[in-house]
Amino acid sequence: MTPEATLARFREYMVGPARFMNLLSCFELGLIDTLRENPGMTAAKLGDAVGVKPDAVEQLLFLMVKEDFVAYDEGSGGYSLDALAAVDKGDLQRALAYMNLIKVVMLRQVFYLTDSVRTGKLAGLKELYGFDGNLYGAVAEHQDLRESWSKLMDNVTARIDPWFFEHVDIPPGARVLDVAGNTGLGAIHTYELKKSPGLRVTTFDLPEKEKECLENFQAHGVAEHCSFIGGDVFEEIPKGFDVVLIKHFLDMFDKDEVFKILDGVHRSLEVGGQVNIMVPVYPEDIKDPGYYTVDFFPTFFLGCTMGQGGAQKLSTYQSWLEECGFEVTKAVAKAPADIPSDVIPLPGIVCATKIA
Amino acid sequence: MTPEATLARFREYMVGPARFMNLLSCFELGLIDTLRENPGMTAAKLGDAVGVKPDAVEQLLFLMVKEDFVAYDEGSGGYSLDALAAVDKGDLQRALAYMNLIKVVMLRQVFYLTDSVRTGKLAGLKELYGFDGNLYGAVAEHQDLRESWSKLMDNVTARIDPWFFEHVDIPPGARVLDVAGNTGLGAIHTYELKKSPGLRVTTFDLPEKEKECLENFQAHGVAEHCSFIGGDVFEEIPKGFDVVLIKHFLDMFDKDEVFKILDGVHRSLEVGGQVNIMVPVYPEDIKDPGYYTVDFFPTFFLGCTMGQGGAQKLSTYQSWLEECGFEVTKAVAKAPADIPSDVIPLPGIVCATKIA
Repeated sequence: MTPEATLARFREYMVGPARFMNLLSCFELGLIDTLRENPGMTAAKLGDAVGVKPDAVEQLLFLMVKEDFVAYDEGSGGYSLDALAAVDKGDLQRALAYMNLIKVVMLRQVFYLTDSVRTGKLAGLKELYGFDGNLYGAVAEHQDLRESWSKLMDNVTARIDPWFFEHVDIPPGARVLDVAGNTGLGAIHTYELKKSPGLRVTTFDLPEKEKECLENFQAHGVAEHCSFIGGDVFEEIPKGFDVVLIKHFLDMFDKDEVFKILDGVHRSLEVGGQVNIMVPVYPEDIKDPGYYTVDFFPTFFLGCTMGQGGAQKLSTYQSWLEECGFEVTKAVAKAPADIPSDVIPLPGIVCATKIA
Repeated sequence: MTPEATLARFREYMVGPARFMNLLSCFELGLIDTLRENPGMTAAKLGDAVGVKPDAVEQLLFLMVKEDFVAYDEGSGGYSLDALAAVDKGDLQRALAYMNLIKVVMLRQVFYLTDSVRTGKLAGLKELYGFDGNLYGAVAEHQDLRESWSKLMDNVTARIDPWFFEHVDIPPGARVLDVAGNTGLGAIHTYELKKSPGLRVTTFDLPEKEKECLENFQAHGVAEHCSFIGGDVFEEIPKGFDVVLIKHFLDMFDKDEVFKILDGVHRSLEVGGQVNIMVPVYPEDIKDPGYYTVDFFPTFFLGCTMGQGGAQKLSTYQSWLEECGFEVTKAVAKAPADIPSDVIPLPGIVCATKIA
């Protein structure tokens, strides 16, 4: 790579924040929806329609035209949707939910990335919200964070859980523990997708989740098959279960903490007991240009959600499980071809059995 | 462009803010400088050296490895500079000054882009700094904004002014007015680069700039040839000059205001008087992928500096000057090949003569 190519790549990075908000703002202002319904509008008419000065409309649409998202007709001065016209509405909604998350949970917070990395604490949440703690605590107190976060998470869970349960073996009548199971959604999915006589699923999380979790079990009609245990995963993981699930959790922690969790699971299971983990994973070849995970998750975890943690390669999780006394029976990751082309995370699953 | 390609392009945009800060943070933390002096360090040693947990070092360097900026040796677990080793230090300093500006002046502010566009005011400066007004006012009150802003502007002026004066004709003994000349740097450059018997250069700007401006003239030994007039460009531009300069100013305003300024210049000049403007310009073909100006400036002006304005094509400035009663005698813009490959703005010059 020549110095010129390196500096040109820096320039790509430099325009990143501006490009991101220029695109999102065109949606937020209603420019895209207005053009969808009224193709051919001029900047003056568009400005009238959305309550923005025509000069600003023109400025924001330059980039949309450059990208062929929007077409501009020199003769009439009219704009219409170009590539954006052909994008499925559901796909667009998914992408916009992600963009909203990035705006609300990342854009301002990453300003403080260096401080967050130095202290291991989220300097951004402290500065912007006066909040001491991680994003998962902050969403409980701040509506803007909560809304953008839960909207995205509900989407992700709905899309990913069926794939997880396709790959994970839950023997009939098993006793299943969903570690860090939050307010029960994972347990509900487990029961609904893996129903068998005698199957019992228990959500394990901090005691303050119990009330909402039990209400969720009631609302989904699974209260007879699901239960809740309150506790701290770093102190003791409950015994008496055949299968442990750990979904969207290990990536929140540095290696030491991941080992504490895996050791705890190991202690809680009998020999032959199973653990199934799901996490976003980095590609085995970090340089693979088809993957966007290392472009996103280090900053996301270190600067915006935890002040620590981050995803790993699937092979790293495999070897960590082996180091903790498990035999890996399955390791599978989604490839870019398996997911929509706007989606950044690629989930991986590792299934393992306690051997000693 | 297929829907898949459009969504993939969205993903490029989505990783923009994270990529930007991941790269900058590696410099801020000292990881790059440490590796330059001690190639082959592991994440553990690097972490020790810069006071950061090794897990976080590893996470932040994933992207640097993906980009070939940094090399990773599987066997030893050691990192060393790859492409970054060959980049000239001066080039790197210039790029880092720009990145610092983007971080301090844009990154958090663009969160409020939609609000700023709707109201025509900088919602970000208000929310983040409690400041009502534009960036040029805010830099006077806020040191962090001022430092990142002036560092960059000094670089830019030093690089660009010689090119401007190469192209601009200042007749011997002319009386020159530098409109919106701030604290005199443009006047000083004019005198130093275009010295002739009887040449007089006057800085025109708001009265509060006078003191610092006159001090600058003294310090540069040009006080005999340079003077200051206080006033407001939107009220009246002083008469009695042969040549008017307008540098880095017209891009701050919407079309109506640009016309007010050009009309004011027209009134102030005699027939045959000259105006020379310099502004960043957009390419004539907005879709030209070699240009990064529309990726940056709309958001920069609308969301971060003015709440209005933005650059235009060179041909747009030409036709605006013609509409205001000038004959354009020269119009020239830098091309991407003329500037270092990390630099975003491409300046243009339009010279014109009052014809009626």
